[in-house]
Amino acid sequence: MAGSAFEYLNETKKQIDSHIRNFLPTVHKNPEIKFFYQLMRDYPMRSGKRLRPAFCFLACEMFGGKIQDAIHTATALELLQSWLLIHDDIEDESILRRGEPCLHHQHGIPMAVNVGDALHCKMWEMLNQNVSLLGYELSFKILSEFIQLSNRVVEGQHIELSWMQEKRWDVSDEDYWMMCVQKTAWYTCITPCRLGALISGSVQPDQLEQFIHIGTDLGVAFQIQDDVLNLIGEEGVYGKEIAGDISEGKRTLMLIHLFRSCTESESAILTSIMDKQRQEKTEVEVFDVLNLMKKYNSIQYAEQKSKQFAKQASDKFDQVSGILPGEEAKQIFKSLIDFVIERQY
Amino acid sequence: MAGSAFEYLNETKKQIDSHIRNFLPTVHKNPEIKFFYQLMRDYPMRSGKRLRPAFCFLACEMFGGKIQDAIHTATALELLQSWLLIHDDIEDESILRRGEPCLHHQHGIPMAVNVGDALHCKMWEMLNQNVSLLGYELSFKILSEFIQLSNRVVEGQHIELSWMQEKRWDVSDEDYWMMCVQKTAWYTCITPCRLGALISGSVQPDQLEQFIHIGTDLGVAFQIQDDVLNLIGEEGVYGKEIAGDISEGKRTLMLIHLFRSCTESESAILTSIMDKQRQEKTEVEVFDVLNLMKKYNSIQYAEQKSKQFAKQASDKFDQVSGILPGEEAKQIFKSLIDFVIERQY
Repeated sequence: MAGSAFEYLNETKKQIDSHIRNFLPTVHKNPEIKFFYQLMRDYPMRSGKRLRPAFCFLACEMFGGKIQDAIHTATALELLQSWLLIHDDIEDESILRRGEPCLHHQHGIPMAVNVGDALHCKMWEMLNQNVSLLGYELSFKILSEFIQLSNRVVEGQHIELSWMQEKRWDVSDEDYWMMCVQKTAWYTCITPCRLGALISGSVQPDQLEQFIHIGTDLGVAFQIQDDVLNLIGEEGVYGKEIAGDISEGKRTLMLIHLFRSCTESESAILTSIMDKQRQEKTEVEVFDVLNLMKKYNSIQYAEQKSKQFAKQASDKFDQVSGILPGEEAKQIFKSLIDFVIERQY
Repeated sequence: MAGSAFEYLNETKKQIDSHIRNFLPTVHKNPEIKFFYQLMRDYPMRSGKRLRPAFCFLACEMFGGKIQDAIHTATALELLQSWLLIHDDIEDESILRRGEPCLHHQHGIPMAVNVGDALHCKMWEMLNQNVSLLGYELSFKILSEFIQLSNRVVEGQHIELSWMQEKRWDVSDEDYWMMCVQKTAWYTCITPCRLGALISGSVQPDQLEQFIHIGTDLGVAFQIQDDVLNLIGEEGVYGKEIAGDISEGKRTLMLIHLFRSCTESESAILTSIMDKQRQEKTEVEVFDVLNLMKKYNSIQYAEQKSKQFAKQASDKFDQVSGILPGEEAKQIFKSLIDFVIERQY
């Protein structure tokens, strides 16, 4: 990744962190509520990449807009992320998030569900601040984008939970893409870019539409790489427990590939391991699954697919970005596409 | 309760049910998402009183407004209720809701958390529809009311969860009122009335303020009566398991009264029972707690307090409602105050 993209992510992070810090409440005379405010700051203040705000800022800039106009909106994307992560971690029975124990492991499921709800509310509160910055019409358009996005994310999440609950392993690559698009692509790439472009004030409807195609490919690439990192990343860098997805029984592209590649007897063993509850799986069993993936090059398959999707996203971007004025933003956007598949965290 | 108030609730219910039915999605080519839509309809379609929409409609009418203008807003209050109930039931480990098993008992915590999130999103989507009905300015005012309300509800919920998690029994009546105001009064009475009044287009700021005082008293009365019904209601009518609050370890006014009224040795026994997890409490132990409440007239104390708060609400309403034009709406509103403390469900 070009140095400029690193710098851009760092600069974005500073702005978003500061905006969140000033926005979320801290002081309350009631000690319980004061503690609640502390819990609400936990996930948003854990060190995130701030990739979604960066996409939003870049899209705004490449259309000639000012990132100051996108500050509430980009920050709202991070509040959305925090709400989703807290609830996802409960739903997936995860243990670590961004290098620390998940919120429900620290404070129990009841409090964690409620803190997620609180951040969900704060997301809409942040978006309501757009009125004084951007006026009614644009603020309302932004709300509509968030509504569309939120509806898709919960649907994608439900599909994934269904597969786990029904112990379904006959998931095809196409099923997986579809789930990724709903669950990841919209909130990681498509909507952030659409929002930035909208805020610039100079985007045409067909250009907004193009971000659906670019962001779909990029979002799928992002999710595959995320799942790959879960298997081969370094825990300290990646921030979650390595191979946690296998313990959680998550349907990843590697696993889908493995199921269709392995022998019948291996498939039977694989099913018996993967169908177990998280706490019933031994470390050896998780290791066995990982070894089978290596045997059948499932991780390589996924990495190659991830690269392929990123390449498609990049090509589609090139086809439409020529006429846009923000040269520097376009360059950084391209480097961020590379970052999505090359990142270690 | 006057027949007219019954009729009003029934009429409100018809309108809200129909509006929810038309609003929530049903059809999707993906079978998982189609099933998800079914889960999303579950709580909103379980038979609720629709008390909050009724307060909203009545406030609108007493200021001379039309209830058609409040339809999205009143329905959004029910979507809020559904989201909160699904998550509350998880947080409180409840079993029954409106006469049927709680959603997380039917489909597991992961899916139930996600369905609650989906309804939370749908609440904001419903509110976004106000723009074409009421214009930008009023729509954003309504959004601001919902934001304020949501922030309070999650704070109130956190206070209650904290008391349970910290095994706190030294809760005073004043602590309890404060929690009730945050958790119940705003979303049951204060905000519904303020919203209706705002939508009428003819409310003055000081009148909006008055609804805080009226609704605070009425909301506390409502919560106390709700807790009383949990102990002495009929399961088929009330819709939740009787004395479930004792099993769940909920801090109610009766329990707070009992703790300060009973002997030291009784208090020790009470603490040892109440500190147990839900599944560790025997039926006999729950019955023992109930009997102690009867011995010390704790239920009577709570009923009397509930009546007192309702009376205060009614008096405050009389002081300010004289100049309002909607005579019939005012009459029905008064009957609804009676309903809050006389209801069996």
